[in-house]
Amino acid sequence: MPAPLVKESTVDVLVIGAGPAGLMAANALGRAGVNVRIIDKRPKKVAAGQADGIQPRIIEVFHSYGLGERLLREGCRLHMAAFYNPGPDGGIELTSRARNISAATARFPFALTLNQGAIESIFLDSMRAMDLQVDRPIVPSYLEISSDEAELQNPQSHAVKVVLQHLDAEQIVEETEIVKAKYLIGADGAHSWVRKQFPITMDGEHTDYVWGVVDLIPDTDFPDIRNRCAIHSNNGSCMIVPREGDLVRLYLQLTDDNLKRVTNPNTGKPDISYCNPQQLLEVAKKTFYPYRIDADGEVGWWTLYIIGQRVASQFSINDRVFIAGDACHTHSPKAGQGMNASMNDTHNLAWKLSHVLRGWAHPSLLKTYEFERRRYAQDLINFDKTFARLFSNKPRTKDNQNGVTHEEFVDVFSKAGGFTSGIGIHYNESPIVNPTYQSLVANVVVGERMPPQTIIRVADSWPFELQDLLPADTRFKVVFFTGDYMNPTQRDKVLELAEKLNQPESFLRKFTPKGARSGDVFDLLTIAASKKEQVTYTDFPKVFRPHWSKIYTDDVDFSGKVGGKVYSSFGVGPSGAIVVVRPDQYVGMISPLDKFSALDDYFSSFMTRPAPL
Amino acid sequence: MPAPLVKESTVDVLVIGAGPAGLMAANALGRAGVNVRIIDKRPKKVAAGQADGIQPRIIEVFHSYGLGERLLREGCRLHMAAFYNPGPDGGIELTSRARNISAATARFPFALTLNQGAIESIFLDSMRAMDLQVDRPIVPSYLEISSDEAELQNPQSHAVKVVLQHLDAEQIVEETEIVKAKYLIGADGAHSWVRKQFPITMDGEHTDYVWGVVDLIPDTDFPDIRNRCAIHSNNGSCMIVPREGDLVRLYLQLTDDNLKRVTNPNTGKPDISYCNPQQLLEVAKKTFYPYRIDADGEVGWWTLYIIGQRVASQFSINDRVFIAGDACHTHSPKAGQGMNASMNDTHNLAWKLSHVLRGWAHPSLLKTYEFERRRYAQDLINFDKTFARLFSNKPRTKDNQNGVTHEEFVDVFSKAGGFTSGIGIHYNESPIVNPTYQSLVANVVVGERMPPQTIIRVADSWPFELQDLLPADTRFKVVFFTGDYMNPTQRDKVLELAEKLNQPESFLRKFTPKGARSGDVFDLLTIAASKKEQVTYTDFPKVFRPHWSKIYTDDVDFSGKVGGKVYSSFGVGPSGAIVVVRPDQYVGMISPLDKFSALDDYFSSFMTRPAPL
Repeated sequence: MPAPLVKESTVDVLVIGAGPAGLMAANALGRAGVNVRIIDKRPKKVAAGQADGIQPRIIEVFHSYGLGERLLREGCRLHMAAFYNPGPDGGIELTSRARNISAATARFPFALTLNQGAIESIFLDSMRAMDLQVDRPIVPSYLEISSDEAELQNPQSHAVKVVLQHLDAEQIVEETEIVKAKYLIGADGAHSWVRKQFPITMDGEHTDYVWGVVDLIPDTDFPDIRNRCAIHSNNGSCMIVPREGDLVRLYLQLTDDNLKRVTNPNTGKPDISYCNPQQLLEVAKKTFYPYRIDADGEVGWWTLYIIGQRVASQFSINDRVFIAGDACHTHSPKAGQGMNASMNDTHNLAWKLSHVLRGWAHPSLLKTYEFERRRYAQDLINFDKTFARLFSNKPRTKDNQNGVTHEEFVDVFSKAGGFTSGIGIHYNESPIVNPTYQSLVANVVVGERMPPQTIIRVADSWPFELQDLLPADTRFKVVFFTGDYMNPTQRDKVLELAEKLNQPESFLRKFTPKGARSGDVFDLLTIAASKKEQVTYTDFPKVFRPHWSKIYTDDVDFSGKVGGKVYSSFGVGPSGAIVVVRPDQYVGMISPLDKFSALDDYFSSFMTRPAPL
Repeated sequence: MPAPLVKESTVDVLVIGAGPAGLMAANALGRAGVNVRIIDKRPKKVAAGQADGIQPRIIEVFHSYGLGERLLREGCRLHMAAFYNPGPDGGIELTSRARNISAATARFPFALTLNQGAIESIFLDSMRAMDLQVDRPIVPSYLEISSDEAELQNPQSHAVKVVLQHLDAEQIVEETEIVKAKYLIGADGAHSWVRKQFPITMDGEHTDYVWGVVDLIPDTDFPDIRNRCAIHSNNGSCMIVPREGDLVRLYLQLTDDNLKRVTNPNTGKPDISYCNPQQLLEVAKKTFYPYRIDADGEVGWWTLYIIGQRVASQFSINDRVFIAGDACHTHSPKAGQGMNASMNDTHNLAWKLSHVLRGWAHPSLLKTYEFERRRYAQDLINFDKTFARLFSNKPRTKDNQNGVTHEEFVDVFSKAGGFTSGIGIHYNESPIVNPTYQSLVANVVVGERMPPQTIIRVADSWPFELQDLLPADTRFKVVFFTGDYMNPTQRDKVLELAEKLNQPESFLRKFTPKGARSGDVFDLLTIAASKKEQVTYTDFPKVFRPHWSKIYTDDVDFSGKVGGKVYSSFGVGPSGAIVVVRPDQYVGMISPLDKFSALDDYFSSFMTRPAPL
């Protein structure tokens, strides 16, 4: 047998793992023009994964990459939640129905289900359009970060060395490749090889709760089979998650005899080889009683799992190697968070890497990745513990006064709405999250994502969703709420602001490379509070309108159905305000219209003067 | 030179002409599974046509074919109209701004502009997915309808004989083909060859109004350049139509000296060879004064036209050959109707041909094509005459007391809203338009298109746009407004209705081929008036729910922003009603819930018992 070939290559960012976290990273970096490569150990794309819950915030994120329409077209929408509990005769009965998503500002007020394979295809198709594909099957075998301090100081150095083994169809090493990368993202799942190369621990615990999961097309008279249902029965709990077409996923708690049946007598632990889908269907039948349920045709995918919650002790090593997704947090699938948390990890990381690689930002910007996402992961597993306990515990009855009451469960379900929807994710104060002037715009929370609202484009009265004007294009958006532009005081402030923006030492000029247009780094948007029939875009200073499409107003559209609520719902007063939105749509800072230094200071805290183009 | 080859072929429907009317026909027929062929004389698709106005109703129609999302993505939306008139110093000034589309029920309350080539591409891509392409370049040379009475009586006979000449790249006849078709659609433009094979006259007249049209990217300080503008100046009138990207189309009236300049001194008639884009730009500069306008770069497409309005004396010959689009009506482009009227012609015709070809309907159904569309074309040119006169006449001034007042113009502009938007198109009484029970649902007009409204799907509280449940799939939709299903009186009516629907002699059973499911010919939709948390789809009789997705209710969705208005806005009372919606989304008839014979009689008037599958 001939020795495997060895080749060498370089890349700016190497992504290991082509699941949702890795694909989000590769797509975002590719879109940003970053030299990125993504590899995966699997010889081909897996058709249908296990994860399927898409929360409202991720729908917004997909829109910010131009991928939202397809996601909405393909996914199944869950608007309603139904709660069932044991009735007087022991069988389940409807206790209440309620909205599935309680986050008030969600642009898409529902959750989606769509199998992981379909989600991955959305990214793969988007990447194909930029000639970016997953290299596979490839496994990494060696990883080293340079210990040369000078090299580490230079954000453009290829400080990460990775050895890759290219496999053939028989999984035999065909070729060895040495890759020198500037940055590496390990998005290689719960058993992450990347994570294991470093002294990173997964901190947390397993519970005693054992659940079965089964996908089927139901044949049933259960009236809420197309709603997300939480069933507490005397035979264990069940969650129903409707899916694409007529498919439904059942999460079935295994307790007592059902648990014994799937336990390996030799190890005393639940073991999937002691379980089969027919057994899970039998559990479902008992749980649903007095309703009838059976599978119409064959049962689809099924599995068994034990709930556990763990978070990695580090998300980053030297700000050169980052881990993301399941590689740094695992939790129960029932809150539908897994894929969402994973994709949000790399959505958070990608723009930061782009800025550092372009020389727009100081490398310390990368520290905010672990700072923001690890805290979120901890919040997530804390929530998951509470939710899993309430879901897995028996309902309260005469005989079980320690059981969970319906009120307790629904209360957690609703309060958690902001969290499980992803809408309420909050990043703490840092150089890129500056809440000093929070009170100026009470309902736009610095460190949270910019809420949606409809605004009217002045030049043509076309209503736009504000979030659609804040795409994930790596640019910071500076949104000027001018107040009523017909009011001379406000107009004077705007004119003064224009003058300051035009000064050579303003953030707009000094952080935009010589030779680039101002809009290449910062996108300025102006939202007046004037009637659309009266305000005229040509009245605004030119720095605010490099193009006629940059001036908006807060008014209703001609249907009278949308618009006119951005100042009131955001809580912007008549004096106006400036809101800086990060490239990931999170609010970075707020400033008064007439306090230009605050804006300048914010950007100066992490941006650098780029080289001329 | 060898004699051209001769081949023979048969087809169910031959479409001649691959412009918007022909492509709408081919796409609709292809989607319906009809054996259709479309030919065109041009060797390749023309990149960008002249027509570009898309009215609100056509946006709805595109949605009914699943093509609306792309249309909306590509088109430029015109929400606002602005009106300019001469000011005291002679230059133009803003008189008022108003909504561009005044039709209250328009689902999309704006007009679109998108060049004809892009519209055609939407159809071509849709057709490609069904393996249907335009055969080209091919010209017809002979056309004959059988005179055999027995053959004409049989809707399945190939009673139309056409000789086609296949051309090569040099436009030389390469092959001759004799096609026997059951039906032929002549969508071959204003100079229609098909029309000229029959004694059909184009009735109408030309006016003295001469206009120039020019596409350009403007360099201007005119503040309404991105709105649809009607400018009456002392130097002639102008209409501005903003287009994709930064492009704008100007319609410029040529009067006095400007008219003289483009007049051929030999003929005394306007002649395009005496005109050039620079000349049109000069006219624009004078018209826009005191605003500045110039072209940023090269001027795009431009032309000269004289307004004329004509309608063909017949739209159909023996209900075997039909003419559609510009072949049967020509008018001025400024009301933005051309492409819309053309596509609506074949949208009207396609489902009727499908029904007759499948043996579902009596061939007399085809008579309603001319009945409905010729009347519409006459209404259109009458409107166009008024509009063109008001637009082309001079504004009223001190010195010109016969001129058009601003109020007169805006009044016509607004009143015509329902008409120009396409929303108000009304088909008169016929076997398929039966207004007997109109009063039961006051605001759903029999003979007009079903208005949009959001309804909530009972099984999962998913809000749907009613129009999206009425796709152009050739099926009649029978919409049951049950009233409050919790009310025993209403529930009893529904149960009785279910029983009648299930009888073997009901329209549902007798007009559905043996071997087919009831949903294959008629789609039944049920809309209750009950709260979404209370109503349960499994409570409805099975005939109304062959699938769980068929039961809806009139309630708000969980965002509180949509839904809950269908009964009140349509004017359905607590006793409910049945609304029959034709495959083209026009309302065919209304019936009380408890007058089953009315429904049966309606369908029996034009449907036939189909052969078993």
